[in-house]
Amino acid sequence: MAGGFDLQALLNGVLANDQRALGRAITLVENDAPVAADILDALYPHTGKARRIGITGPPGAGKSTLTAALIRKFREAHLSLGIVAVDPTSPFSGGAVLGDRVRMTEFSLDRQVFVRSMASRGHLGGLSARAQEVADVLDAAGRDIVLFETVGVGQTELDIAGAVDTTVVVLVPESGDIIQTMKAGLMEIADIFVVNKADRDGADKLARELSMALHLRIKEAPSREIPVLKTSAESGEGIEALLTEIDSHFNDVDGSGQLLQKRLDRIEKRIISDIELRLKGRFWNDEKRKALAERLPAVTRKELSPRALADFLWEMGNDK
Amino acid sequence: MAGGFDLQALLNGVLANDQRALGRAITLVENDAPVAADILDALYPHTGKARRIGITGPPGAGKSTLTAALIRKFREAHLSLGIVAVDPTSPFSGGAVLGDRVRMTEFSLDRQVFVRSMASRGHLGGLSARAQEVADVLDAAGRDIVLFETVGVGQTELDIAGAVDTTVVVLVPESGDIIQTMKAGLMEIADIFVVNKADRDGADKLARELSMALHLRIKEAPSREIPVLKTSAESGEGIEALLTEIDSHFNDVDGSGQLLQKRLDRIEKRIISDIELRLKGRFWNDEKRKALAERLPAVTRKELSPRALADFLWEMGNDK
Repeated sequence: MAGGFDLQALLNGVLANDQRALGRAITLVENDAPVAADILDALYPHTGKARRIGITGPPGAGKSTLTAALIRKFREAHLSLGIVAVDPTSPFSGGAVLGDRVRMTEFSLDRQVFVRSMASRGHLGGLSARAQEVADVLDAAGRDIVLFETVGVGQTELDIAGAVDTTVVVLVPESGDIIQTMKAGLMEIADIFVVNKADRDGADKLARELSMALHLRIKEAPSREIPVLKTSAESGEGIEALLTEIDSHFNDVDGSGQLLQKRLDRIEKRIISDIELRLKGRFWNDEKRKALAERLPAVTRKELSPRALADFLWEMGNDK
Repeated sequence: MAGGFDLQALLNGVLANDQRALGRAITLVENDAPVAADILDALYPHTGKARRIGITGPPGAGKSTLTAALIRKFREAHLSLGIVAVDPTSPFSGGAVLGDRVRMTEFSLDRQVFVRSMASRGHLGGLSARAQEVADVLDAAGRDIVLFETVGVGQTELDIAGAVDTTVVVLVPESGDIIQTMKAGLMEIADIFVVNKADRDGADKLARELSMALHLRIKEAPSREIPVLKTSAESGEGIEALLTEIDSHFNDVDGSGQLLQKRLDRIEKRIISDIELRLKGRFWNDEKRKALAERLPAVTRKELSPRALADFLWEMGNDK
């Protein structure tokens, strides 16, 4: 097809794990190009083999250094990887000091490590869906591991972190106490806790508090024990143990049927968020945007409440 | 009205700045009770007098201590306040170490300081709308100042922080470098930057970097200069200067007509998010929830892609 777009060639390239085809397909999916639906439908039957691992935690917890250390270990075991970075403070997604970024170049020549960073803004709420679709492309290409790196504070980022087989929550003594961690919703998504920068003051205390809080939770609702590990990603200390825990968690949930349930939940959330994007897209036509703009001044003049204007727009109907 | 709910009495109580009526009305609005729409419509003409100030920044930046210091200053000037805390790490919203919480009790006997903390989870995306409605109730009650305290990382929290007249972004040297701040979207919402814990290493460097970055931005799009202040909320250093800057910012935007535009934008966003909540509520009926549950296993078996199932649900129509 001279000059045209050859979908089949692109799909073949992705399925053959070709780096260029992969990059191109992912860009199309990330940008929600018209052809994205065809790409994803065609690749979908080839997904499900990759293990999806989430690395999340507050800014400054050393997630990127830890991710890099894990990548090295996976590569030693000859596993191929795809990394989806949705953390504005991560060197993988470009938002870090120069030193960090330079450190990341160690993977730039390794064709078995594909890194894609996604902006956390400008996705109109569709970021979680897009990130998972990017993971599907990497999965279909045969990558053994897909790693998501997110900053676990916002709801979208928590959604992404939860959309994996195993979620690792990384904390440091400076990232706050146990109550903050609970309030941020990190307790609910963690399969494994890591106290990173373990040589710092307060690391032992944080690890102890986490273990105690987790122990109390297990009493309420017995389930798999959530391990609390101490690492020093800089020195490599504890990384091997973390890898063992990740494997052990995966094997446990796989063996118990929980993995299937997790994946079912994940797909359900994706479909619901897809529907929500469509609802917005259909409702907001030119006529309604115009009506909103025309009536807004009446709201500022207090002649109309915000709810009353929403009612008015709603009454305009929203079919087609 | 024996045993019944007397809306008019509640409204009168709010308009008379009665603490109990205020608490009750806010709870009804926060929980989106059926009567919330009536309360808000009735109070809406009485809003618009309160100055709305947002205090935001990453966890650990000392926002609560700074907020407390500001409250003290406003009280010295005999201004009444409403505080809406949507920060999971804030002592105002309950997520902090005991010492912080004890410190906050200093306002518990002052009837001119009304504090309401809102959970950042479980609001189905309606948190930003609810927080602003709570502010409307405080505004209608005649509170001179409404302070929002949020952790500026997630999109919802940024939305709330942006829904004010003046946004103060609080950073500390530990909260990361200038690129991280830019990536997190804090550059775009800040009217005033505060480098808190100014006695720590790196405070001067961060302040200098911020000033330089802001200077570059002003060259691109000339607007009001965004000041960078150094404070130490613990010792009270710089708080007076911050208050002066907040006043100066408010007077500038008020005088130039920008305040009106800001408030217009804010109302527009509220209406859009209200509509989105309604769209979701209408689409998801029992029939569609059932169809989703029944067909999900086919997606896990790869017989159907997530998009194809979304298409199926979409085709079921979404009227009524």
